[in-house]
Order: sequence, then structure tokens, then C-alpha cells
Amino acid sequence: VPFATALAAALSLEWLHTASLVQDDLPCMDDDPVRRRTPSAHVRHGEGLALLASDALVALAFEDVAALARDPAVGAERAATLLAALARELGAGGTVGGQALDLLARERGVTDLRTLLEIHRHKTAPLFRLAATVGAVLADLPPARRAALEATLASLGVAFQIVDDLLDAAPRPGNGLGRPLGSDARARRATFATAVRHERARDLARTLAVPFATLGGAEPLRTAFARLAEFVVVRSG
Amino acid sequence: VPFATALAAALSLEWLHTASLVQDDLPCMDDDPVRRRTPSAHVRHGEGLALLASDALVALAFEDVAALARDPAVGAERAATLLAALARELGAGGTVGGQALDLLARERGVTDLRTLLEIHRHKTAPLFRLAATVGAVLADLPPARRAALEATLASLGVAFQIVDDLLDAAPRPGNGLGRPLGSDARARRATFATAVRHERARDLARTLAVPFATLGGAEPLRTAFARLAEFVVVRSG
Repeated sequence: VPFATALAAALSLEWLHTASLVQDDLPCMDDDPVRRRTPSAHVRHGEGLALLASDALVALAFEDVAALARDPAVGAERAATLLAALARELGAGGTVGGQALDLLARERGVTDLRTLLEIHRHKTAPLFRLAATVGAVLADLPPARRAALEATLASLGVAFQIVDDLLDAAPRPGNGLGRPLGSDARARRATFATAVRHERARDLARTLAVPFATLGGAEPLRTAFARLAEFVVVRSG
Repeated sequence: VPFATALAAALSLEWLHTASLVQDDLPCMDDDPVRRRTPSAHVRHGEGLALLASDALVALAFEDVAALARDPAVGAERAATLLAALARELGAGGTVGGQALDLLARERGVTDLRTLLEIHRHKTAPLFRLAATVGAVLADLPPARRAALEATLASLGVAFQIVDDLLDAAPRPGNGLGRPLGSDARARRATFATAVRHERARDLARTLAVPFATLGGAEPLRTAFARLAEFVVVRSG
């Protein structure tokens, strides 16, 4: 696949990701006034325009992938497969459903480990898995290898979210997330920091990252996979 | 095209439409507590879940149309064309961009006729035009006929919105819209009721509906088009 094609597909994932961050920060979700060390979109532009910007980014993601149907390196068949995956991972069975589970768990004060993993598997894993799907479809991987890659990335996504929970609760200045410390606690979100002791949570994240760390393949990819997995687990921001 | 195929495509438009209504009713948009004579989604389920429901409906629309790629009556090529149209009419150049224009006009207190038509052309026309696109693509209409049908439906969409503005401002109980009278005025929306005298607005709506009313074709479609156009102009709810 040409670099420009892969870049267009990768950018679509970034539009979806950014849209999800803008929505997550809204007062009716996590109510976070700060994102990446600057005021959140709704603080700067108002809730209405922020919400519309996230809507527009979602539409742009679908529009850019739909345009790949006319890219000879992709074609209509594979573009349609990608669009179906985008919609599935985004929707009620994916990240939107995961955020709904999160809201409901908060409302009911549920913070057990089982629920927490369920939320992360639905809310954070889908966009990671989608990255695997996009790569696998563009590279024409056989179904079994595509499924294995998707499971690997989904697992890494849950590891990422566990560490995110830990960092949000870290009792020290400058946790590196670019948002105020303890914003999860204020929003009464169930997080791994409240559910299990920190070391156990970090161990769980490490275990979940193993399939990605050991993906293998040719150098320098082999080393890059291992380093990225390690970063997800030990990162401080 | 088989009936089941057409129905699946039509339902996708309805998912997009319902999603737009749920979002429009949110406090950060039109702040309407009533929709179709019952409490709006956010009043009943909270803002967070209402917003997620609208997100899920948008994803479902794309998912259902993407699934048409495997329908032999549609195929991947036409499904990709439909998905591109969905994304385009929904996004920054479509209904989401139109709602942003609306919010900005309110903020600035702009209510002139030119701006109002610009808002309606972006906010309301896209979903009407999309219905034409979906029908034309599924029926394999030649490009010129597809473009004419799209222009006709977009024009009917603007007519529909003009009459919607008039009904919202109608000084009588039970305007039939299923929402409180004057909710547009409370939200300081620029509407046709404030911009021009009612009769002139109704005349403009009638003119805009003419292309649809005179679409012609075989009976009973010919009569159905004319009656639907008349209903859009004279409706009381």
C-alpha cells in the first residue's frame, strides 16, 4: 500500500480519536476543563461548537475512508470493509457503548474489577483494534492473522487505559497527562486506581501488553513493538 | 432494487435524522425539553446518555449502509458512493456545518434573510438531498437526473424549514409540532418568523416546493409528489 494511502487511513483514526476526546471532556461526560495542557474545546469555543466539531470529525473520518474506494491501491471492496469496521468499533457495540457503560457504572457507584475491565474492553479497546483492522485489511492479511492482530491491539488498549487510570490518580504534581490530577475521582469514574492496588494494576497492564510486545517480525519493527509495549506500561504521561 | 434493500437504506436516513433531533434538543443547542409531545431524550435519560444515543445512531446509519456492500442488489461500488454521500451531507459542509452557522448567527444576533437561507440550505437541505442521492444511486439514474433530483429535494428541505419556523412562532395553542410554542424565540434562533412577514415566508416556501410538486412521472407517484409538496407548505404540524 502506498504511503499516502496508509496516511489517509491513519488520519481517519486520528479524527475519530480526537472527536472522542472532545466529547469525553464535555460537562455531561467527564467534565474536564483541560486537555493536553490547554483549555478543552468546550471551554474555549462553547459546548455547542465543541460538540459540532466532534460530529464533523466523525463525518470526516468516514468521508476520508469512503474516498479510498477510488484509490486503486484500496478499491471499493476494501473501503466498504474498512467503513463497516469504523462504524462497528465506534457505535453501540464499540466505544460509544463503552462510554455509556462507564456513565451507568458511575451513576450506580459500581467500581469492581470485572465491570472496570468490561468498560475498558468496550471503551478503549475498539480504537486500538480498529488500527489493527485497518492495517490488516490494507495489507491483505489472511483472516486468522487479522483476528490475532486485532486481539493483540485490543489487549494493548486495555493496558493503556489501566495505566491512564493510575496516572490520573498519581499523588504527585505533573502527572504528564496534561489534565488536572484527580479529575477521574472528581467525576466519580470507576478507575483501576480505586479498584486494585497500584502495583497489581501495573502488573495486569504488563500482562495485557505481552502479545503486542512479542509480535516479532523483521527488525526494526520487532524492537519497535517491544519498546512501544513497554512505554504503554511504564509511561509517566 | 428489492424492497428490503430500499428499506435498509431509508432506515439509515431515519437514524441520521433522529440523531440530529436528539442533538438539537440538547441544552447546548436549542435547549428544547419537549419533542414529539414527550420529554426530550436528555430530559428523560440525562445529557450524557442522550448524546451517546445520538452518536450510536450515526454509527448505525453508516454500519447499515456499509452492510449493503454485501447485498447483491447494491454491491461495494454503490455502497461506497452512498457512504461518501452520507459523510458529506452530515459533516462540516452539511448539516453539522449548518448547525454551527446557526449557533454563530444566534451568538451574533444576525437574523437577515440571506443568512437565514444560508443556514437552512446547510442545516436542513442536506438530509433531504441525501434521500434523493440514495434513491438515485440505488436506481442507477444518470448523473444529470440525479443532480436534478438532489436540487429538487434540497429546495423542498428549505421550504420545510421555513414552514417549521412559522409554526414555531404561530400565536395559537397546539401548533402541532409537539414542542412548546416559541422555543425558537427563547433560544434566540434566527427564524423566518422573525425575518419576513408570514405570508411572504409561506409564498417563498411554496415557490421552493414547486420543483418537487411538478416532478411528474407515472401515476400514482405524480399525484403523491404534488400532494407531499402541498403538505410541506400548508401543514399545521
